[in-house]
Amino acid sequence: MNFSSDNVSPICPEILSAIVAESESAALPYGADDKSQQLDTAFSELFGTEVAVVPVATGTAANLIGLSGLVSPFGGVVCHHHAHINMTESTGVAFYGGGTKLLGLDGPSAKIEAATLDSFLTAHSPNGMHSVDPECVAITQTTEFGTVYTVDEIHAIGSVCQKHDMRLFMDGARFANAVAALECHPSDITWKAGVDVLSFGATKNGALAVDAIILFDPELRRHTEKSRKRGGHLFSKHRYLAAQLLAYVQDDLWLRNARHANTAAITLMQSLEALGAKAAFPPQGNELFIHMNDDLAKTLRDAGIIFRPWASIGPDAYRFVCAWNSPTDLIRDLGKTIAG
Amino acid sequence: MNFSSDNVSPICPEILSAIVAESESAALPYGADDKSQQLDTAFSELFGTEVAVVPVATGTAANLIGLSGLVSPFGGVVCHHHAHINMTESTGVAFYGGGTKLLGLDGPSAKIEAATLDSFLTAHSPNGMHSVDPECVAITQTTEFGTVYTVDEIHAIGSVCQKHDMRLFMDGARFANAVAALECHPSDITWKAGVDVLSFGATKNGALAVDAIILFDPELRRHTEKSRKRGGHLFSKHRYLAAQLLAYVQDDLWLRNARHANTAAITLMQSLEALGAKAAFPPQGNELFIHMNDDLAKTLRDAGIIFRPWASIGPDAYRFVCAWNSPTDLIRDLGKTIAG
Amino acid sequence: MNFSSDNVSPICPEILSAIVAESESAALPYGADDKSQQLDTAFSELFGTEVAVVPVATGTAANLIGLSGLVSPFGGVVCHHHAHINMTESTGVAFYGGGTKLLGLDGPSAKIEAATLDSFLTAHSPNGMHSVDPECVAITQTTEFGTVYTVDEIHAIGSVCQKHDMRLFMDGARFANAVAALECHPSDITWKAGVDVLSFGATKNGALAVDAIILFDPELRRHTEKSRKRGGHLFSKHRYLAAQLLAYVQDDLWLRNARHANTAAITLMQSLEALGAKAAFPPQGNELFIHMNDDLAKTLRDAGIIFRPWASIGPDAYRFVCAWNSPTDLIRDLGKTIAG
Amino acid sequence: MNFSSDNVSPICPEILSAIVAESESAALPYGADDKSQQLDTAFSELFGTEVAVVPVATGTAANLIGLSGLVSPFGGVVCHHHAHINMTESTGVAFYGGGTKLLGLDGPSAKIEAATLDSFLTAHSPNGMHSVDPECVAITQTTEFGTVYTVDEIHAIGSVCQKHDMRLFMDGARFANAVAALECHPSDITWKAGVDVLSFGATKNGALAVDAIILFDPELRRHTEKSRKRGGHLFSKHRYLAAQLLAYVQDDLWLRNARHANTAAITLMQSLEALGAKAAFPPQGNELFIHMNDDLAKTLRDAGIIFRPWASIGPDAYRFVCAWNSPTDLIRDLGKTIAG
Repeated sequence: MNFSSDNVSPICPEILSAIVAESESAALPYGADDKSQQLDTAFSELFGTEVAVVPVATGTAANLIGLSGLVSPFGGVVCHHHAHINMTESTGVAFYGGGTKLLGLDGPSAKIEAATLDSFLTAHSPNGMHSVDPECVAITQTTEFGTVYTVDEIHAIGSVCQKHDMRLFMDGARFANAVAALECHPSDITWKAGVDVLSFGATKNGALAVDAIILFDPELRRHTEKSRKRGGHLFSKHRYLAAQLLAYVQDDLWLRNARHANTAAITLMQSLEALGAKAAFPPQGNELFIHMNDDLAKTLRDAGIIFRPWASIGPDAYRFVCAWNSPTDLIRDLGKTIAG
Repeated sequence: MNFSSDNVSPICPEILSAIVAESESAALPYGADDKSQQLDTAFSELFGTEVAVVPVATGTAANLIGLSGLVSPFGGVVCHHHAHINMTESTGVAFYGGGTKLLGLDGPSAKIEAATLDSFLTAHSPNGMHSVDPECVAITQTTEFGTVYTVDEIHAIGSVCQKHDMRLFMDGARFANAVAALECHPSDITWKAGVDVLSFGATKNGALAVDAIILFDPELRRHTEKSRKRGGHLFSKHRYLAAQLLAYVQDDLWLRNARHANTAAITLMQSLEALGAKAAFPPQGNELFIHMNDDLAKTLRDAGIIFRPWASIGPDAYRFVCAWNSPTDLIRDLGKTIAG
Repeated sequence: MNFSSDNVSPICPEILSAIVAESESAALPYGADDKSQQLDTAFSELFGTEVAVVPVATGTAANLIGLSGLVSPFGGVVCHHHAHINMTESTGVAFYGGGTKLLGLDGPSAKIEAATLDSFLTAHSPNGMHSVDPECVAITQTTEFGTVYTVDEIHAIGSVCQKHDMRLFMDGARFANAVAALECHPSDITWKAGVDVLSFGATKNGALAVDAIILFDPELRRHTEKSRKRGGHLFSKHRYLAAQLLAYVQDDLWLRNARHANTAAITLMQSLEALGAKAAFPPQGNELFIHMNDDLAKTLRDAGIIFRPWASIGPDAYRFVCAWNSPTDLIRDLGKTIAG
Repeated sequence: MNFSSDNVSPICPEILSAIVAESESAALPYGADDKSQQLDTAFSELFGTEVAVVPVATGTAANLIGLSGLVSPFGGVVCHHHAHINMTESTGVAFYGGGTKLLGLDGPSAKIEAATLDSFLTAHSPNGMHSVDPECVAITQTTEFGTVYTVDEIHAIGSVCQKHDMRLFMDGARFANAVAALECHPSDITWKAGVDVLSFGATKNGALAVDAIILFDPELRRHTEKSRKRGGHLFSKHRYLAAQLLAYVQDDLWLRNARHANTAAITLMQSLEALGAKAAFPPQGNELFIHMNDDLAKTLRDAGIIFRPWASIGPDAYRFVCAWNSPTDLIRDLGKTIAG
């Protein structure tokens, strides 16, 4: 069993079928095809408001291009120190933003707390031309430590953003897992809370390669599309991005896949705890961060279980990630399996 | 029949099968999987020399990221005025190059001539810090007007580059069509002629979305991979890029697809000439640029033939592009079809 | 006599006096001082309309920072091929613009003609996200070949810009020489003709180092000041920039210096023609571009006259530039001098 | 008395005389003049090793352009959280570096400690293409809190840099004050300790506007000069930068000015302590950071003493800066003056 990441899983059957079906005929390039033209409508229905959809092939592209419309080359993006955009996306935010700086905050379990954010923004003294002034706040849902902002927490952050005239961006590489965990409507944690732009991940949750930039402010479309093209992210066979996304949201596939992964993760946590592991953070989505001793780690590895050490949490910390195809039965019987 | 571009065609069966086959199991992300690890070897064999392969999902990304290792933020890339990088890739070269400027040359049928290039480079007076000095030459094979540089022409350009200490880049979005047309070895028009970096297109010739940056100077790998990641082009499910590329070069699929498209294009030219059209340039690859009168254009359109006007050549000019799946029989009988 | 450029001349007495006077007391930094605070008013009076003034120390900085507020990272600046921003300012426009591309036009004596501009802009087919669309036009007054746009010519260009929704920028490194030559009001060739931003040169015309970015659209101030600071061009002792500029516009010093230089240039042209030289372009400001044979060039050099060859005009072409302190009497008697 | 900053002081007499003297004749532009040509020699003598000198007009430009040669667009610069480049230079480091990121460290009195730096660099796990890897360390001498790194401290930092293969940059906006305070040779805290590039400040210490980028690795010259030109910082009347710098280092003017300012600061500290203030940090250069109560602050202000609150240290914290022309006698008698 491979828990090293959800991106080790292959394409799920429904999306693979959509790719195969798309391969039977010709279609116009660069988003002029029928399927691409359906995206705005499909996602506007999903979110219950008018949105503009700009698909790209990677989560990093979705974050970088999505953010680039919300902040100036002279401005800052406030994020958690552990944010993916701060830790794992090279100097991409400055690249696509033309200089834009990341301003890191602390907070428990990789979450920004509204009060901390408010204090930070209140304490910031704009220093004329000299300082980098915050212009945007970016949060990750689910967070980099596998936790999930509650609906209230996101609304509180949205209020602080409104108070300080900040734009609000959400890195939703695992957005589906958050919605599944919260059992909320996708609007509850996005535009209703003030989110301006969402990167809506599909790649980790069953797609080949597509994440959608969801613009709750359709005025951002032109900049975002220009930025996408200029970055080399406009697909000629754009319809394959659209086909993946339409299959992903049809019949709640995105939520079904996420629920499966979340359930597998909770089951895995129970199995690991039974073996002596302890959760580093409450498991809420499909990622587990645990502490365990060397013996247990070795036993698991010897049984062919794959997972990764996570040094930023501690020397005895590890990450396990479940996916749309994680084998729940085997996970439930993990104790037996490794005893096997 | 849709001749508006080769990118309207779907994935070819062999590559689709590879994507389906890849979807049966888990694999490491970001290029650590087995298939990605085979790319350097596969392409080193193909080119008969050691190369480093950096796959991306679009031709624009391949060009922009591939070029970025060959030129400084203060330098210029000499290209034809009609070059795709100059006309159709937004401000991407300056973006990935950190300021890099395009310096356009004229030349027949979208080709740079070696003598013109030599004159230009000889006449350029470096003006200390003030001027943008040429550092790299970029050519497109097949060209933007569907013509093909001969082996000798490319060697002549390579010699001029060597004389003036220029790096040499080749935009090979339709590289397969050129090799098929020239019946040469791929090395004959690349590293043996001094090409440093090639963008090796697959998307237009049967893939879903993958073009490979081929580095004939493996020292460029680190910069190129850094630039790819920073641009948001490093796929987590990198293995799907690798699977497409491996299928593409297996059993000469890339050349078989290209030969089919080239043959279809020559056949189409004959059919169009029989109807009164005239070639704007000698058709050498899979693209045709023709002149025809309004009546013929209308007749074709009424028969459901799709093609695009091409204003940069003239008010009566049009482009037709054939692909790996163009229906040669129907094309041969075009006269009958439209008479239909 | 040194005619190699007007920038070889030292500071003129009035401006030097202002620098000396400024050195007797303390003053607030970064533009908060009294003199800096007077700039907007002084230049608003000079131009007869409300302007915002952002001083920098070089003409290149004035051009690059001034342009950066008028064009997006994805857009183009239409200019003459021979424009200083295209030929002599490295990749600065792309740097400060975040990718912005220069689109070069031809035209006689380094002038863009309104009809040519109109044709170019009309013929440009916006190609969706792919193309670089013109967003701004930049002209140089006086031009790079020493000629001067007439009031009508600039109004015609302004009308074309308005028609095509372009912003209009003027590189006025030698703006004073143009106003002196035209005997017009400075407003006649700027905001009344639709100019949005002017780089108002002082360095070549008697200052130590200061060119002012004049914003006829004061909304551009914030972006321009941010760009100036970020580029490292905000002086702590900003008052010395202000002191130079205030002295420069007081009692028409800028025009008196320019008139002197223009008169010297016309006189020099007469003296050179008497010796057998021919004007390459009608001398209108303080720069002469001439053709002469090798014998005359040698004779002048042997007499200690300094000037520069100008290869872009021809192998027998040379540039002579007069300045605020050019010795008109000696120039008038050039024939005697070199005979001497 | 104005202690709000050293940059409120005017040009010192020796440098003003040099500017006046330079204004008597013509000279070649862009650094080809005699004085500019003397800079490398003068500073090589000053530092006792071969250096290349690239003058610019502001300290921010010196930092940004100087750093740009030491780090890639994908890399990080380790600095103190309070570093000027991090707090007060907008997004300039990313701008000139093409994306370069600042990585902030803590440390007492705005100093990076060698042990902290070593821990940070040792703990950094390069994460393939994903992470921003440190490539350069930047320290400020004297620091942003007016303290001075000892010779040993800088050598210790240099050793850590060497161990981890980092380049070392020094922001020397107040370098003269540090050398004066340490009574060391300028080489002792620069190249002998491994510093690659120094921004050598003159503006705050008596010049009109010039800071010199000192390259201890002359191979950096080409990149640095290209970066300077492209940023708009190459002066046409470059000789005025050179004249200021030559006067500044002649007969130890730079040290005499700095010693005066340092002495004034120590005297001021004594006077302020006598009035009830307390030093926030040991005063070592020409900047004081103090705590005092509101009554004392009011008394001083009422007496016409100008100084600035410094919120980052505390609500009762203030900064006082002395300069080359601070009136030492009045400062000594501050108690009497305000009693006055």
